[in-house]
Amino acid sequence: MTTTATLNRRVLLASRPVGLPTSANWQIADAPMPALPPGGVLVRNLMLSLDPAMRGWMNEGRSYIEAVGIGDVMRAGGVGRIIASDTSAFSVGDHVSGMLGVQQFCAIEAKALAMTGLTRIDVGMAPLPKWLNALGMPGMTAYFGLLDVGQPKAGETVVVSGAAGAVGQTVGQVARIKGCRVVGIAGGAAKCEFVVKELGFDACIDYKAGSVRDGLKAHCPKGVDVYFDNVGGDILDTVLTRINMKARIVICGAISQYNATAPVKGPSNYLSLLVNRARMEGIVVFDYARRYPEAVREIAGWMAEGKFISREDIVDGIDHFPETLLKLFSGENFGKLVLKVADEV
Amino acid sequence: MTTTATLNRRVLLASRPVGLPTSANWQIADAPMPALPPGGVLVRNLMLSLDPAMRGWMNEGRSYIEAVGIGDVMRAGGVGRIIASDTSAFSVGDHVSGMLGVQQFCAIEAKALAMTGLTRIDVGMAPLPKWLNALGMPGMTAYFGLLDVGQPKAGETVVVSGAAGAVGQTVGQVARIKGCRVVGIAGGAAKCEFVVKELGFDACIDYKAGSVRDGLKAHCPKGVDVYFDNVGGDILDTVLTRINMKARIVICGAISQYNATAPVKGPSNYLSLLVNRARMEGIVVFDYARRYPEAVREIAGWMAEGKFISREDIVDGIDHFPETLLKLFSGENFGKLVLKVADEV
Repeated sequence: MTTTATLNRRVLLASRPVGLPTSANWQIADAPMPALPPGGVLVRNLMLSLDPAMRGWMNEGRSYIEAVGIGDVMRAGGVGRIIASDTSAFSVGDHVSGMLGVQQFCAIEAKALAMTGLTRIDVGMAPLPKWLNALGMPGMTAYFGLLDVGQPKAGETVVVSGAAGAVGQTVGQVARIKGCRVVGIAGGAAKCEFVVKELGFDACIDYKAGSVRDGLKAHCPKGVDVYFDNVGGDILDTVLTRINMKARIVICGAISQYNATAPVKGPSNYLSLLVNRARMEGIVVFDYARRYPEAVREIAGWMAEGKFISREDIVDGIDHFPETLLKLFSGENFGKLVLKVADEV
Repeated sequence: MTTTATLNRRVLLASRPVGLPTSANWQIADAPMPALPPGGVLVRNLMLSLDPAMRGWMNEGRSYIEAVGIGDVMRAGGVGRIIASDTSAFSVGDHVSGMLGVQQFCAIEAKALAMTGLTRIDVGMAPLPKWLNALGMPGMTAYFGLLDVGQPKAGETVVVSGAAGAVGQTVGQVARIKGCRVVGIAGGAAKCEFVVKELGFDACIDYKAGSVRDGLKAHCPKGVDVYFDNVGGDILDTVLTRINMKARIVICGAISQYNATAPVKGPSNYLSLLVNRARMEGIVVFDYARRYPEAVREIAGWMAEGKFISREDIVDGIDHFPETLLKLFSGENFGKLVLKVADEV
């Protein structure tokens, strides 16, 4: 083992939040360094992915995935390096991604290797943080949600909310590359400028500065063919008033509703689906696991050609997990939110 | 001409309703008998179709079809008989269906024949009222909405609201014939009994008598694969909590919301679409106009074999249009609501 640490700092779910998570919902505690399980691996976690979906995992009850148990290590996707291995599938020094948890080290038993989604990644193809963004879950979600569920055709208008966020970045850039008119919705002038100037969207509507309805009228003169929704709430309702015949609405998330203590606000304008013979459909990325390599190859290719960028907002230090997670819900993060847990050694 | 009438009684839209239509929204007036337009036809209306969609046509503004103008004859589908013709496409004595309007006679100009959807019907194949029900718009809506949008597979569970209504009857019977488990939702013991005993559904939940949620738990032990929604509101929200992975929700109507003066209640549980990778999609029957003959043939065949029934609730007299329409919104009608305007002569 190449590590000098003897303890494993972990962030445990202490209680279930009502509304926004607070520090009282977390317990940060050091455990002994885990042993290498027979047939398994020991991973030093390097960077963790902070995602809106984490809020759902903190709730009681089953959703598309089990809830995190009280007293358990918080679930998180991450990238790390194999520091000990008892399986021929992984060698010491390999970079890997998978569900590593909010902790410094992750011991994975033989039988849990598949469930953890542990996969070797090639840091020669793209730097480490990209594997949590465009080449990781958000990128895969965007790629398959847009192309498989949204089915955009060249010349169509694609609108995406959370446009500067992890999923939104990739949705818009893939749509642009596929020949669509792309309009983002994001909060604040800096994000909107980034979306247009760096990501190459045709336009971006600042929902904090004005009416989304007016923005859609101005920037989608031919209506909306595909809407990729990351936010729900009023923005979803507004886009529903501007969709075209046979439009496709991809339901990827509803960050505006995740901390709601009132019932979720359903889309009042859903009858626009009827009038327009349109479709609203959910996507869960895990369904496409077998096809990740195809998306990774294509996106990495675009990155290499300089046609595609992937922006991360990296915060340093596992102890900062609780307050860093909140940046997602205030919209403070700028790009894919990543928590750095250790330097490469 | 075989008619002895010299006047044409018509029901005109006098004003736009707020909430439920009242008698003040209508004007019933006699106009002179219309002349045969050059190249067109003159139809004696026999029976008219009263449909929930009429409520939408009374509103200002364009939906999937133009609003009825103030002072215009109220739009209605109907069946009638050609009493004069100046086109080789129709002969005196032909039975026809089309958008004939709430009036005793309908004069159709040459250029309006297609827009009116005027089609010859074969009363030897099925009695006249069937052409406003299973072999008319409700039947076509049910057939294509279920099969093309809902795509049920044998063995799956199909739930339909408004199960005793015009569309619901056909949805459930087609699903049964295609080998699905079929559960209806209807209001009142008499309708539920009709749905199970006469239409052959596996079960019917009486939403007036108890919890729809409990009913779905009891009667859909394997969850809901296809939900055909005619009502919207709380029932749609409840079904969303019971859908299976990859479920299909067909949005055909939302009768619970058509007279609402408050904003439409959006489905709070729409994120169930995400969790279940499910789909919600609208249907408008006119999109399938070219394929009506295929559906008519198949449904008429089932009727002839005794596998399929079509029930109408026939009210006599054009003067009763205003109060008869309201039966749709109180749920008082039992079967497809038809207004008889004239006897066959």
